[in-house]
Amino acid sequence: MPTQLSETAFPVDQDGGSACPDLALLRQAAVFRDLDDRLLTRISAVSTVVILGENAPICRQGEPADRFYLLISGQVALSNTAPNGTSAVVEVIPPGGHFMLPTVLARLPLLMNANTVAESRLIAIDATALLNLLQTESALATALLRAEAMDFRAMVRQVCDLKLRTTAQRLGCYLLELSKDRAVNTASMRLPFDKRLLAARLGCRQENLSRAFAALRSLGVETHGSRVILHDIARLRDYSEPDDFTDVECA
Amino acid sequence: MPTQLSETAFPVDQDGGSACPDLALLRQAAVFRDLDDRLLTRISAVSTVVILGENAPICRQGEPADRFYLLISGQVALSNTAPNGTSAVVEVIPPGGHFMLPTVLARLPLLMNANTVAESRLIAIDATALLNLLQTESALATALLRAEAMDFRAMVRQVCDLKLRTTAQRLGCYLLELSKDRAVNTASMRLPFDKRLLAARLGCRQENLSRAFAALRSLGVETHGSRVILHDIARLRDYSEPDDFTDVECA
Repeated sequence: MPTQLSETAFPVDQDGGSACPDLALLRQAAVFRDLDDRLLTRISAVSTVVILGENAPICRQGEPADRFYLLISGQVALSNTAPNGTSAVVEVIPPGGHFMLPTVLARLPLLMNANTVAESRLIAIDATALLNLLQTESALATALLRAEAMDFRAMVRQVCDLKLRTTAQRLGCYLLELSKDRAVNTASMRLPFDKRLLAARLGCRQENLSRAFAALRSLGVETHGSRVILHDIARLRDYSEPDDFTDVECA
Repeated sequence: MPTQLSETAFPVDQDGGSACPDLALLRQAAVFRDLDDRLLTRISAVSTVVILGENAPICRQGEPADRFYLLISGQVALSNTAPNGTSAVVEVIPPGGHFMLPTVLARLPLLMNANTVAESRLIAIDATALLNLLQTESALATALLRAEAMDFRAMVRQVCDLKLRTTAQRLGCYLLELSKDRAVNTASMRLPFDKRLLAARLGCRQENLSRAFAALRSLGVETHGSRVILHDIARLRDYSEPDDFTDVECA
């Protein structure tokens, strides 16, 4: 049975260390990468390391946003359940990512459910303590405002993606994002999660995802289960037309 | 020819008043509704009232985010243009709304284009001055963090909408949102913008929007040009399954 977070008792780090994360662990989250030791020490003091098994619930939509989460390893799916019970997978958070920030900062009820997809190591930061730190730590405020803006941009990208692209193009863009090395024209990768979740993340039915993979075959996309080979990245790029959003800070 | 904003000269309020907005005008924006006079006076000092004609460009994606905008009257469409030139309408801002906040707060380049849909009165707030005010005005920080979270939630809602609902259901949800009075079962309204823009906002082709209106006819949705009558809100709600997101602040 998956471990479930409770209000009173967090599972302690299985490495046997303290429940507070060390600074190197905090820096594995992109949002805190550039903060200095003094500030990270203050953040660590209000944080807890949490290890959860596969498919474990972390928090539920409608609950108060009492923790900001960093994902160190594993994967977390964020979803929203409609009144009729259907669920949309809004995002799958990769290691180094974070979730629930805008809701924590605005003290609103959670908009999404969070569940682990694979066994995951997380850092849970107490929301009230984080908001208190914000009052005096301007470097933290800057980091969080920026992270919140990046979260917003990620959602805008998805909205554009869903409005402008076919399922096959969305899948193409997703595979192109997974292939980090832009210098070469071929790539081999493993899908980070199963096709059921991938379909939900892309906003299509599983049978449409299969059709999309079939459509991409003629563009040099070869699949063997979760392993994917891109034989002609330039051609896939021409077809999928990925965004070229610039996320470089202005002077 | 529509007036275009330039770096050096803002058009001055046509009422002949000062280019700085008065406090009552600033309070017409939901984001600033609850701020006190002292703080609003400081905000007013770094703000300019701008009046633009129909279809006027306000700012372009890729440009530095040097102004935060409040919309007092009129309508503004936010869009993103893909590398191939196709555009997605991400959102249409109604009077009382705001735009470009996350990008301003994070000092990132603009992610979207903003254009007036109808003649519009806006308040443009200098980004650098706003960020300076944020350092000392915690009520402003709270208001902006909350507004940013609401912006994020609006995008999450759209993502869920696009992933879970058909075009006809999305149109149904949109019409239900326009009909504010939840107590009665009928409503009459005027679409706030033309069907071309409505199709783009809903993320469908114009012919699909026509099909969606036709599909809703049997659910009591009657249209005459831009006028829409909902004869059976309960039935439309059952069909469209709108979200029941709670946006009430936690204690």
